[in-house]
Amino acid sequence: MRLTVIGSVALDTIETPSAKKKEILGGSATYASFSASFFAPVSVISVVGKDFPVKYVKMLRSRGVDTTGLVAKPGQTFRWKARYDKDLGHAETLGTELGVFQGFEPRIPRTVTADTNLLLANIDPELQSYIFHRLKPKGLVACDTMNHWISGSRKALIRLLKKVDIFLLNDAEARMLSGEKNLLEAARFCASKGARMVVIKKGEHGALFFSKGLEFMVPAYLLENIVDPTGAGDTFAGGMLGYLSSKRRVTSMDLRRSLVYGTIMASFAVERFAATGLAETRMSEVKIRVKQFEKLTRF
Amino acid sequence: MRLTVIGSVALDTIETPSAKKKEILGGSATYASFSASFFAPVSVISVVGKDFPVKYVKMLRSRGVDTTGLVAKPGQTFRWKARYDKDLGHAETLGTELGVFQGFEPRIPRTVTADTNLLLANIDPELQSYIFHRLKPKGLVACDTMNHWISGSRKALIRLLKKVDIFLLNDAEARMLSGEKNLLEAARFCASKGARMVVIKKGEHGALFFSKGLEFMVPAYLLENIVDPTGAGDTFAGGMLGYLSSKRRVTSMDLRRSLVYGTIMASFAVERFAATGLAETRMSEVKIRVKQFEKLTRF
Repeated sequence: MRLTVIGSVALDTIETPSAKKKEILGGSATYASFSASFFAPVSVISVVGKDFPVKYVKMLRSRGVDTTGLVAKPGQTFRWKARYDKDLGHAETLGTELGVFQGFEPRIPRTVTADTNLLLANIDPELQSYIFHRLKPKGLVACDTMNHWISGSRKALIRLLKKVDIFLLNDAEARMLSGEKNLLEAARFCASKGARMVVIKKGEHGALFFSKGLEFMVPAYLLENIVDPTGAGDTFAGGMLGYLSSKRRVTSMDLRRSLVYGTIMASFAVERFAATGLAETRMSEVKIRVKQFEKLTRF
Repeated sequence: MRLTVIGSVALDTIETPSAKKKEILGGSATYASFSASFFAPVSVISVVGKDFPVKYVKMLRSRGVDTTGLVAKPGQTFRWKARYDKDLGHAETLGTELGVFQGFEPRIPRTVTADTNLLLANIDPELQSYIFHRLKPKGLVACDTMNHWISGSRKALIRLLKKVDIFLLNDAEARMLSGEKNLLEAARFCASKGARMVVIKKGEHGALFFSKGLEFMVPAYLLENIVDPTGAGDTFAGGMLGYLSSKRRVTSMDLRRSLVYGTIMASFAVERFAATGLAETRMSEVKIRVKQFEKLTRF
């Protein structure tokens, strides 16, 4: 099934202890679309400014991503500036310029019908909700978020959970949203608000999956060298939903394996700066790493 | 094969955000021996004072632990006082009274021969080394440690690593000992000092295993309620070595599974205060939890 991704397309300026990169390709929809494109046909819905380099649109297309829904509007592309601490564990936002996202009213392109899975990548829950209600997708609906929306748009986010099949968030966000220290309790809270399945991403410590009757734990892929954690969560969500979109009927084993694919795709995202690195990954590399991961975790 | 455990037997006074328990059964050898006793015959080598409650010696014996090497000397049993922070993530040591451990020269009891695996549970590396050289075990030698010895007895610990088959330590300790942030690098450092296999324990995030040609990752068992993390690492080491001691020839699959058994035993240890809770666990409960763990991690 096709996967439609809505989220941000951005130009990031990232500072890590070892390097500083200016205006590189970022955004939740970008990472998620690249990641999903390894497994299923993807349509992206987002907005960029007239300053957005055409080469990046071409890069999305070269991975087979349908960019009909990627609108270019007069004004500046969304920009995010951040600095990571020495362990790359925490990003401090130094600046956010909404640009064309200010007052953005996404339109559903003619290429996207209700016959689609929908990934509401990390973006304002009001926008996520708007697209969900306009599209009324018949497939799976997944929703990712971040601390910013949990504190600033809590009600809109909680309202949206009723519509969501798979809710993804990280451990700190799960604790923040639920007020529960224990992640099992935090997942239960999300389920009580309507999310049918909950995925808690723990970064370098892997991920947890909760639903009625199925719990699954997956460690992260061990990496020699992490360069830039930006987009890891978006890439995880994209890989997971892309993999699920490649299945005609989703079994519980597919759900388990979708977390493995999310994990592996995220491991490629953090090895290089910018979403461009992910775009250049080859499917053969993905397959090798999945096999290695199987070996690393079997007992 | 028999497993000989040397380490501390202690009376702990533990404060958590929810409770305070005075002079409860603790010590690295205690947790490790109870844990290992589920899988293999165990002999413990340690020392207690005349104040040590006889019921605890009986409890060790009731789990089949040979206590011939547990010497009672005039003086006070080793005491440790600690307070955990609200996430139970960190123990602040409030006091340590060495008691009879001051100047303790362990003797190898007649029940223990070189035909044994040896677990050098967390204790002064000088004592660990002393026992290793007196016993000259033909089996596997495992060594656990803690931050206190890494900072205070670094040279003795590093010297000991040459003799060690399996070196266990937690993630913070691995980074401290190696000066490496990345755990793969930290494990390589330990291997370069002579440890044939390295196990990095990550608490609620599972454990990693490194050796030439075999790497393995295991998540922690998800728990509803953690009461007291004391002894989790000792219990992990005991479960791992106990399981390996139950095998005539250790295969790489046994090594993998030994981490799973360490994980499961540790999950029981942290659900109750004191090592007595672990002692009261039934083998049938262990088996059920191992099965659940398999279901939780298969993909």
